[in-house]
Amino acid sequence: MTLPTAADSVKSRLPDAPDAKFVAAPADGVLPEGFFSTTNLPTYVRVNGQWVMPLEPRMDSALVLDSDGNVWVKEGRRVERGEMVAVGSKEDGSEGIYVDSALVSDEEIDEFKFMSSEVSREKPIDYSLMARILIRERDRGGYIIWVTGPALVHARARSDMVWFIKNGFVGALLAGNAVAVHDIEASIFGTTLGMTNTGVATPGGHGLHMRAINKVRAAGSIVDAVRQGIVSDGIMHALVTSDIPFVLTGSIRDDGPLPEVITDTLAAQDAMKRHTTKATMAILVATALHAIATGNMLPAFVTEPDGTLRELSTICVDSSEFVVSKLKDRGTHQAFGVVTNAQDFMHILRIYVERELSGVATG
Amino acid sequence: MTLPTAADSVKSRLPDAPDAKFVAAPADGVLPEGFFSTTNLPTYVRVNGQWVMPLEPRMDSALVLDSDGNVWVKEGRRVERGEMVAVGSKEDGSEGIYVDSALVSDEEIDEFKFMSSEVSREKPIDYSLMARILIRERDRGGYIIWVTGPALVHARARSDMVWFIKNGFVGALLAGNAVAVHDIEASIFGTTLGMTNTGVATPGGHGLHMRAINKVRAAGSIVDAVRQGIVSDGIMHALVTSDIPFVLTGSIRDDGPLPEVITDTLAAQDAMKRHTTKATMAILVATALHAIATGNMLPAFVTEPDGTLRELSTICVDSSEFVVSKLKDRGTHQAFGVVTNAQDFMHILRIYVERELSGVATG
Amino acid sequence: MTLPTAADSVKSRLPDAPDAKFVAAPADGVLPEGFFSTTNLPTYVRVNGQWVMPLEPRMDSALVLDSDGNVWVKEGRRVERGEMVAVGSKEDGSEGIYVDSALVSDEEIDEFKFMSSEVSREKPIDYSLMARILIRERDRGGYIIWVTGPALVHARARSDMVWFIKNGFVGALLAGNAVAVHDIEASIFGTTLGMTNTGVATPGGHGLHMRAINKVRAAGSIVDAVRQGIVSDGIMHALVTSDIPFVLTGSIRDDGPLPEVITDTLAAQDAMKRHTTKATMAILVATALHAIATGNMLPAFVTEPDGTLRELSTICVDSSEFVVSKLKDRGTHQAFGVVTNAQDFMHILRIYVERELSGVATG
Amino acid sequence: MTLPTAADSVKSRLPDAPDAKFVAAPADGVLPEGFFSTTNLPTYVRVNGQWVMPLEPRMDSALVLDSDGNVWVKEGRRVERGEMVAVGSKEDGSEGIYVDSALVSDEEIDEFKFMSSEVSREKPIDYSLMARILIRERDRGGYIIWVTGPALVHARARSDMVWFIKNGFVGALLAGNAVAVHDIEASIFGTTLGMTNTGVATPGGHGLHMRAINKVRAAGSIVDAVRQGIVSDGIMHALVTSDIPFVLTGSIRDDGPLPEVITDTLAAQDAMKRHTTKATMAILVATALHAIATGNMLPAFVTEPDGTLRELSTICVDSSEFVVSKLKDRGTHQAFGVVTNAQDFMHILRIYVERELSGVATG
Repeated sequence: MTLPTAADSVKSRLPDAPDAKFVAAPADGVLPEGFFSTTNLPTYVRVNGQWVMPLEPRMDSALVLDSDGNVWVKEGRRVERGEMVAVGSKEDGSEGIYVDSALVSDEEIDEFKFMSSEVSREKPIDYSLMARILIRERDRGGYIIWVTGPALVHARARSDMVWFIKNGFVGALLAGNAVAVHDIEASIFGTTLGMTNTGVATPGGHGLHMRAINKVRAAGSIVDAVRQGIVSDGIMHALVTSDIPFVLTGSIRDDGPLPEVITDTLAAQDAMKRHTTKATMAILVATALHAIATGNMLPAFVTEPDGTLRELSTICVDSSEFVVSKLKDRGTHQAFGVVTNAQDFMHILRIYVERELSGVATG
Repeated sequence: MTLPTAADSVKSRLPDAPDAKFVAAPADGVLPEGFFSTTNLPTYVRVNGQWVMPLEPRMDSALVLDSDGNVWVKEGRRVERGEMVAVGSKEDGSEGIYVDSALVSDEEIDEFKFMSSEVSREKPIDYSLMARILIRERDRGGYIIWVTGPALVHARARSDMVWFIKNGFVGALLAGNAVAVHDIEASIFGTTLGMTNTGVATPGGHGLHMRAINKVRAAGSIVDAVRQGIVSDGIMHALVTSDIPFVLTGSIRDDGPLPEVITDTLAAQDAMKRHTTKATMAILVATALHAIATGNMLPAFVTEPDGTLRELSTICVDSSEFVVSKLKDRGTHQAFGVVTNAQDFMHILRIYVERELSGVATG
Repeated sequence: MTLPTAADSVKSRLPDAPDAKFVAAPADGVLPEGFFSTTNLPTYVRVNGQWVMPLEPRMDSALVLDSDGNVWVKEGRRVERGEMVAVGSKEDGSEGIYVDSALVSDEEIDEFKFMSSEVSREKPIDYSLMARILIRERDRGGYIIWVTGPALVHARARSDMVWFIKNGFVGALLAGNAVAVHDIEASIFGTTLGMTNTGVATPGGHGLHMRAINKVRAAGSIVDAVRQGIVSDGIMHALVTSDIPFVLTGSIRDDGPLPEVITDTLAAQDAMKRHTTKATMAILVATALHAIATGNMLPAFVTEPDGTLRELSTICVDSSEFVVSKLKDRGTHQAFGVVTNAQDFMHILRIYVERELSGVATG
Repeated sequence: MTLPTAADSVKSRLPDAPDAKFVAAPADGVLPEGFFSTTNLPTYVRVNGQWVMPLEPRMDSALVLDSDGNVWVKEGRRVERGEMVAVGSKEDGSEGIYVDSALVSDEEIDEFKFMSSEVSREKPIDYSLMARILIRERDRGGYIIWVTGPALVHARARSDMVWFIKNGFVGALLAGNAVAVHDIEASIFGTTLGMTNTGVATPGGHGLHMRAINKVRAAGSIVDAVRQGIVSDGIMHALVTSDIPFVLTGSIRDDGPLPEVITDTLAAQDAMKRHTTKATMAILVATALHAIATGNMLPAFVTEPDGTLRELSTICVDSSEFVVSKLKDRGTHQAFGVVTNAQDFMHILRIYVERELSGVATG
């Protein structure tokens, strides 16, 4: 075969590279220890002082030298006992094998890698780390804002949210009308949108959220409804009784709305900003609208009392990669994405925080 | 206004219906107790013996009678003190209000409802119920098959899966090459696809799964690798040491493959069927290919020793509604869908099972 | 084998059913014409006057009678030449085979079916039908409301939307601030969120939407900006110059906002309702917030001048099944879901409408 | 106020930077031309020779200097006529404003940007470019491999695929059993999985794909079934009659399978590799399994006859970002993602190719 001319530039760039080392395969379909594992990028192997491009390139395979001095890319299962297989782990030519990532250069690959995407349901979720950050923020007097969508209540993570409120992990809650409506429907009727907590529709259920709203409007406000005993448990009850501020912002989707809802969206933004300006950590759960609105007004950093800066820890939880990627695409680059169900997130996070607080090692 | 002719048929169908009852609103923007909450369907209100169609129809609103005998659909917030608002909860005319669902008839609506979809991330997940079913199956000697995708290992639900194996909840594991490869990479190198359990890529990481495969091929088989101490923890280790059968079926995506993988897909189907035929419960986690393949060969029912039949409990877990809906669309109608992250599902299910076993009430 | 007792009830329900008919397989792995194709439901086969349950049940397979009178469920590929295979297509016992769907009864299956979900990316999209409905609505003077999210502009379906406006297919546009902002940024700077129409970020691009907003605020209004030639093409330009009403409703996510945006969400709902009350068709594209808000106030029906009712054609387009299912779960049961990219939807719908108008048959 | 110490390092790094320039706002809520648009990153403004950090930082806003020398971040709508607003577009200090991206440093931001994610349904799809690449590959004798999932047939993009085959754009088709099964069911019965091309289930429909398979098995092979006139249109018919090679690879999900399906997955990989080795372009539509399998064995580059290298154009189409991101996460970094419905993709791509071929400018 004739050498591809592309090999010439490798030759001039790496004049002192050694020949690649080859070791015999110990058995059919078994590679020698330390075998070089291929990528799909242009690869050059130094054989007898010449840079050779392997034939039939593909990733996850071995480099096999034949008796004519050709190098073949072969799947391990196809390698026979005694065939000469390249060993080495360096891709920079220092062991006689050079992988050229320049062709895919806009990604600035320094090394071929798997799992390079930032947001993926396939990445592990480090609840232990999140729990420790949360506890640290609380203990140093940080201001943790929670921004939540109705799925959190709809899917019954209510009791976990109440637990976080009562244990000092919530500086302020920013949400929409629906979060409070579902929460209050659950308190008064035991349902959300007429569905019980096992997911069954109840007769007449479609009107229950309207009846819940009406009771609060009759009482005057959510705070009044809590004080009058109409709302006796749940998220809004915990906020009111624990004196934690909340901002309910209006949208065109609102039923009612509840009395505390700020229906003018500019006044609502101003009310939100009073909290984002103070925030030292943000947890955004199951809401595209509120998460991106908060992201718009949230600095990427916190200024410490001594004037130093640190990144503002921002966790964004959603069922799909889309919302987290969108948040980043709108400039909130510091957001750490967790792709899961809101209910499950809340439950596991609470368990990890409880474990940390009780001194139990988690893993 | 002239009466829409559609009202005539209501009149003849419900000759004995009473007039609707109207009650004055107690305050501006507050409706009387028991107000009728509207839907978006054609609605007829009996006023002075005539069936009237309300004007400006929409859902989630009130029916307001004006002094001319017209009925208007008004949002609660727009209702003024003293306006006459319809009360009642029946939609069948027996309280003077009739809602006609025939127009949307192919869905056979017997009552207007929210949350009627079968599979939704917004539905609550009843872990408590699933835990009780799982324990009941184990305790009566049922045969629980688990069908899992690599996300389960990739995202570190390994230790939870091991727990289920060691505690008798796994009759057989049906999976692909990748589940075993990731699990064994994790055991030998502490990574999956070169990513640590906190989601960070390691240098040279892209070759680690190939090195793991090669070590097992050199040992002869997974069983041999476990016995020789090469694989010392994880899912495959637990299966081998607990004598639980597993079927690893091949796909064109496989690296390696590992020795136990059945590469002929028809032989693989036959091997799977030996377990689906015995199954009394199936848990399908994070795999479209294997879940639908299993669904194809899984009966929807179990025959009890006494000849009676019961539904074969089938749980399908995936990050999106799509896989669960697809499974149903391919005929596995009995599947109960859980839309969440595989890692979180495994962790919470285990916690609920542990709680049930220790006799602690869960909720 | 002993007969399962469940067969007894079939016997009493179907006393006059004939025996099932069996025909020899013509070749190895080939079934006779008219073979019965199995489901995963409990199935009973009448053999010599007895109802037998087939062994090893699964779907998509054949029923094979052995010499002992047992019936086996076998995959076609495993059937050998000469084996006796059941034929028939009825599942009600009239051909000697009875399939019992009662076990999966809450779904009211009258027949085992695939593809029974309502919303799926796997369902064909009937653009031809949508095109005809759209033309019919226009030609009879209907009032078609379009409710769109920014993805429609963001992803360059602008020129198609302009085409629909200019050709009389738009009665009113209901949208948020972002739709107008992206559209006007595209008109003034040729970008959306600083990204060119080939998806490349431009230097200084992150500020361009703010500059676009500022120019319109300086001009006084969108209408003024169009009249002054500041905005010279695009969706807002087409609406203004064609005298088509639009409603821009505010949200907490808004930058600016543009002068015409109604920032009070209740005033915004009232403005939207003036159009939903008149609507005879609704097209909801790429927006969860606005689609569900519109669904909340949209009747499921249209009252014809003669008093008869018809369903209000409602098309909901989104990239995922989730938004369409959510719209239905919030009560807009009549919505027809199209799962695709907004840009592609607009382009193909326009092509089909153009073809219909030019009299070309489509298919 | 005291200066944050972080400003000191800016001072030393940029000793010669000028003061920022401020211009009076021309009207309430209107900013001066050329205003500086803020980001959420730490920002320093030089005022009277001192580097000042603006107060109440957020993105998409203006920098306003008050009479005390403080700089405030204010939304444009809140700026009053005459207030002094910073102008400039540089973020490197050369105009007196410095934005420090080091805090978010692992992303190597050289400038604050929106829409930086690689795969998003919000990015425009450049069909015109794809059409030109496709034509160029065909015209220079390239080898274009198509890798497709059943959704392509299921959702009726059959006629478009046939068009690409007949017009020389398909070098080889790599797919699974289901693509051929659905295609042949459509040819023989006019349905896919028993569903008509308008999405309606037919009586007895669930067995039709099995009957289609059986007819082909009886004929001997797909090629025979085409030659005998049993299969008279569609994708497989076009491949056979145009002498285009196809590889059908087996999976555990297969019904049948059809005779040409390679059931051993290693033999199937070898058969696929014979085509990936020759490929000069790859189009992967609506299949996770086959796309990633192909990605595993596809080089990222093509070696030209003269020895130079170029990137192997790889287009990956799926309804969600997930599959494309997964393909990249498994190492196929060169893949260009298109997030849309397979049916719509095929239809628009064909239209653009037809336009290019007929010399019509597209846009």
